[in-house]
Amino acid sequence: MRVKRVLKLLAGITICSIFLSVCLWSQCNHGNLPSRQDQNFYRDDLAADRRIQGNFDTEQFHQRGIHTNSLNPEQEVKYHAIDCIINGEYNRPVKCRRDNGDIYVPFDFIKNYFEVYGKLETGDGYEHLAFSHVNSMVHPPRNTYSPSGIFMSFEFYHVEERDRVKCISGMEGVPISTQWTSEGHHYPIQIAQYGLSHHSKHVLQGAPEVLVLEDGEEDRVADWIIVDKRSQVTLTDDTTLGIRVVEFASSDSLKTPGLSISADEKTNHFVSVDLKFISNGSLSVMVETQSQQVFHIHYVLSSTLILIEGRDIYYGLGPRRGQWIHVTRDISIDLQKGLALRYNKGKRAKLKYNFSKITIITIRGHGWLDNLTLASSAHLDGFYSAADWLVTHQNDRGGWPVMVRRKLVPGLLELPPGWYSAMAQGQAMSLLVRAYLSSEKKKYLRAAMEAMKLFEISSEQGGVLAKFANTYEWYEEYPTTPSSFVLNGFIYSLLGLYDLKEVASGDAALMAERLYNVGLTSLKFMLLLFDTGSGTLYDLRHVALGVEPNRARWDYHTTHINQLLQLSVIDKDPLFKTTANRWMGYMKGKRSHHN
Amino acid sequence: MRVKRVLKLLAGITICSIFLSVCLWSQCNHGNLPSRQDQNFYRDDLAADRRIQGNFDTEQFHQRGIHTNSLNPEQEVKYHAIDCIINGEYNRPVKCRRDNGDIYVPFDFIKNYFEVYGKLETGDGYEHLAFSHVNSMVHPPRNTYSPSGIFMSFEFYHVEERDRVKCISGMEGVPISTQWTSEGHHYPIQIAQYGLSHHSKHVLQGAPEVLVLEDGEEDRVADWIIVDKRSQVTLTDDTTLGIRVVEFASSDSLKTPGLSISADEKTNHFVSVDLKFISNGSLSVMVETQSQQVFHIHYVLSSTLILIEGRDIYYGLGPRRGQWIHVTRDISIDLQKGLALRYNKGKRAKLKYNFSKITIITIRGHGWLDNLTLASSAHLDGFYSAADWLVTHQNDRGGWPVMVRRKLVPGLLELPPGWYSAMAQGQAMSLLVRAYLSSEKKKYLRAAMEAMKLFEISSEQGGVLAKFANTYEWYEEYPTTPSSFVLNGFIYSLLGLYDLKEVASGDAALMAERLYNVGLTSLKFMLLLFDTGSGTLYDLRHVALGVEPNRARWDYHTTHINQLLQLSVIDKDPLFKTTANRWMGYMKGKRSHHN
Repeated sequence: MRVKRVLKLLAGITICSIFLSVCLWSQCNHGNLPSRQDQNFYRDDLAADRRIQGNFDTEQFHQRGIHTNSLNPEQEVKYHAIDCIINGEYNRPVKCRRDNGDIYVPFDFIKNYFEVYGKLETGDGYEHLAFSHVNSMVHPPRNTYSPSGIFMSFEFYHVEERDRVKCISGMEGVPISTQWTSEGHHYPIQIAQYGLSHHSKHVLQGAPEVLVLEDGEEDRVADWIIVDKRSQVTLTDDTTLGIRVVEFASSDSLKTPGLSISADEKTNHFVSVDLKFISNGSLSVMVETQSQQVFHIHYVLSSTLILIEGRDIYYGLGPRRGQWIHVTRDISIDLQKGLALRYNKGKRAKLKYNFSKITIITIRGHGWLDNLTLASSAHLDGFYSAADWLVTHQNDRGGWPVMVRRKLVPGLLELPPGWYSAMAQGQAMSLLVRAYLSSEKKKYLRAAMEAMKLFEISSEQGGVLAKFANTYEWYEEYPTTPSSFVLNGFIYSLLGLYDLKEVASGDAALMAERLYNVGLTSLKFMLLLFDTGSGTLYDLRHVALGVEPNRARWDYHTTHINQLLQLSVIDKDPLFKTTANRWMGYMKGKRSHHN
Repeated sequence: MRVKRVLKLLAGITICSIFLSVCLWSQCNHGNLPSRQDQNFYRDDLAADRRIQGNFDTEQFHQRGIHTNSLNPEQEVKYHAIDCIINGEYNRPVKCRRDNGDIYVPFDFIKNYFEVYGKLETGDGYEHLAFSHVNSMVHPPRNTYSPSGIFMSFEFYHVEERDRVKCISGMEGVPISTQWTSEGHHYPIQIAQYGLSHHSKHVLQGAPEVLVLEDGEEDRVADWIIVDKRSQVTLTDDTTLGIRVVEFASSDSLKTPGLSISADEKTNHFVSVDLKFISNGSLSVMVETQSQQVFHIHYVLSSTLILIEGRDIYYGLGPRRGQWIHVTRDISIDLQKGLALRYNKGKRAKLKYNFSKITIITIRGHGWLDNLTLASSAHLDGFYSAADWLVTHQNDRGGWPVMVRRKLVPGLLELPPGWYSAMAQGQAMSLLVRAYLSSEKKKYLRAAMEAMKLFEISSEQGGVLAKFANTYEWYEEYPTTPSSFVLNGFIYSLLGLYDLKEVASGDAALMAERLYNVGLTSLKFMLLLFDTGSGTLYDLRHVALGVEPNRARWDYHTTHINQLLQLSVIDKDPLFKTTANRWMGYMKGKRSHHN
């Protein structure tokens, strides 16, 4: 008995020593990948292991699954680090792994080399690498299209939230863009998209529930907090308007308490009111962040765009004393934009400096107010503010000049301030046509028709009309010389012309129809010049300039797809649908065939 | 003592059991990758291991390097199989590996998904994966170009060796193509390329050393083996040519021994001879393959193209009795093509059925011969045979019609037999100009000038002239309707026009110059329409047809690059050089920027 035990012991210990070397070996193999020298080291190491094996019944040894990581126990250990030489660049090999016949390449290399994406996901306990060819997705538009309906899939747009929107101006209720200039400017495309997105959301969601705080009717008079005895709130008539309103009178100084209504409003963060000041005055909203910090947002009768001082954020309503003005503000956005002047996105997130609730609404100065309300949205206001801005600011050429220098290709393709964009003109048309159809106000339709004029003027003459190969007419998002032929801007301009031709009458209808048809013909001929067989190009600058093609990043590629899907609804040419489907395939790594 | 030993024993055995489970685990992990369930199994398995650890001094345990494959002994085992979900396709995950933070993807997947290449190499003991973005390479042409010099890098072309060359015809010494039809046809592009490649090689290598077997001079009369007493060989004069030749007389039957010269020639496998038969007759060459098999190649006075029966291969010299004919044959190629009628490439390689040596040369029938030689090459013969074929077969439109149906896009872009190719016309010009400059024979120049005529006739009219966007003139390799705008064929046609304009005079020179300049203008405008930002397109069929782009496979991409490099030598526009450099970058996985 005892003798046997001792033998077992020896066997056990020998096995252990083998295990030890095996596991030490595999340890070397699994951390940071070793250099070429290290590989040779492994080989020696393995040789050593094999020597140890020598004393052993190798067959039984393998059956126990020891010292092999292949399914075939006869095979030797093959798993090791291996260099991958990329396109002959011996100086910097990629460290790969080899397991018998199979070679494994680090995903980090693949991501950079092939411009693909991927992250480790562990949802419902299933740990896996989610590999993705692209970093954007398609929001296909609906199968119907009407000039009064949702525009493309703009219900997914949140223009005001974008970082390059400095704020929504207090004077006109439209976004101020910091694209290409940090001071900010009115960028007609952004304004039109702001209007179109709110219109689309309104069509989808309808009017929000509105919480009336004060409308001058006795039965709904608000609980005004009056600290200073000299201040007062009284119900009265506006004889000119023939309506009951609230007269307020207090010091206009922001240092004084003014007249307040307290609230505890988390969801209805849209404050809306009609106001008429006859003194200097202001409307202030006290808000709390998710970190329970308190800020005061003041809407004052000045031309200041936006300003932050300590815990006070200021928006100018313009010097509009002595007239009724309608104010609608998204307090959440106004807080975000105010804080953005001081803290970057990361910092704001860190401080939890985002909107939590409205606590107090205060009015200061002397004047009248009506329809003080809270609501969860105010899409119609966004929609009409944008449409009205376009009507007000359209110049005698029917255009909305962009007042910043645009450097498409620095030194080669630049537009000095004052350029027009066919995309701006077109999206303005789409918005104005919708404003006309929902309000029946002719001023919107007139503006839309005026906006066509620049489509007949060449880029060289300050218009937006280009010609490809001296043959195909193209409406330029950026009317550079030589022409740049940006695809998405052109298609937006065609949608504008389509909307207009559908509602206009007389000569304007004929002109819109002609411009639309000419453009559509060009698009059908030129569309596939943007198809690379694995993605799309953003423009055709390379043709004129002889430079490298400007590939569209994936979110522009998806825009192209959405646009083709939308066009396939209004035009029966199969080209649009077929192409859109192929372009969707590219997003999953498909390529067109090669010869 | 004994007690301690027993403790050691227990310890030993426990360790072993742990080792066992660890290694079993690692085994599961290294063969075919496990499913999601298996992964969970591993986790439980590990948990089990950890339970066992429990009894143990874990610190010491780790120091021994047991049960961890990471470099940091504190970490738990991290290395395991992990699914990669590709673009959300959960139904077929790719089996990857995870080692701590690093994920490794199987190269087999990468190869297929991204269309790249790679193989395991072990040169000088350095085992590595040679990853390659492409499967072809650039042979940049020289920095100089002349219409009498090397054409592009055609010295690398071996037209006659290609599988789609059925054989070199015995009647005219030009390749017979099986492209698009297995019967074979004279494909002018292939014939011109055959001539251009041999011209280029001749320019590079000069005349080969020639081994004269028989030229009718006493001092070099060959050792004729005369078996049949009735057969004879005598030196005599050819009164018409005024030269000494050899008269031969024997039975013309291939069953008879005829008149032979024995040889043992491995390297000089080009047999050349001047022959004049006044009876039926033949020239036969006995060859040995690398597997010591013997074949007989017979050149007979018939119109048979090529034929194999048993060990006999036949080539027809045409019914050319009673005239001096010059025969030059690459015995190695003639053997290959003969055997190709019976065995495919793989089979021939397996049987080692490739040329080893010439053992006997036999003449049969009655007639005269002169200049029977052996040589290592015969580039001038290949060059002039092609040029002469073009002169002989040019029709009154100045063209070389292709007598097979060409289906560029079946059903959509097809050319019925009899079509002309601007590429054939152009490469013929390049060849004919070279033949003219080296021979000073006007017939070659005349044919080259005639070849221009089709460049002024539209594809619809049976010519090769297309227009892009009704503006840019383009010479079509395949003059389809709608036009296909094949890039490489167009550039070859431009090179032909360039060669011609350089040597022609008078009106022809003016016409060539105009056609060249018009084409070059089109090329400069349209070149980048073929640039996808990661490769090139073969043609522009997709624009006219609304179909997917036809990406150029890598060997066409390299052709494009070679052509641009060649153009950059003869035209100073930086476009060609810049573009060629970018396109070379694409071959290493570079891409143009995206916006």
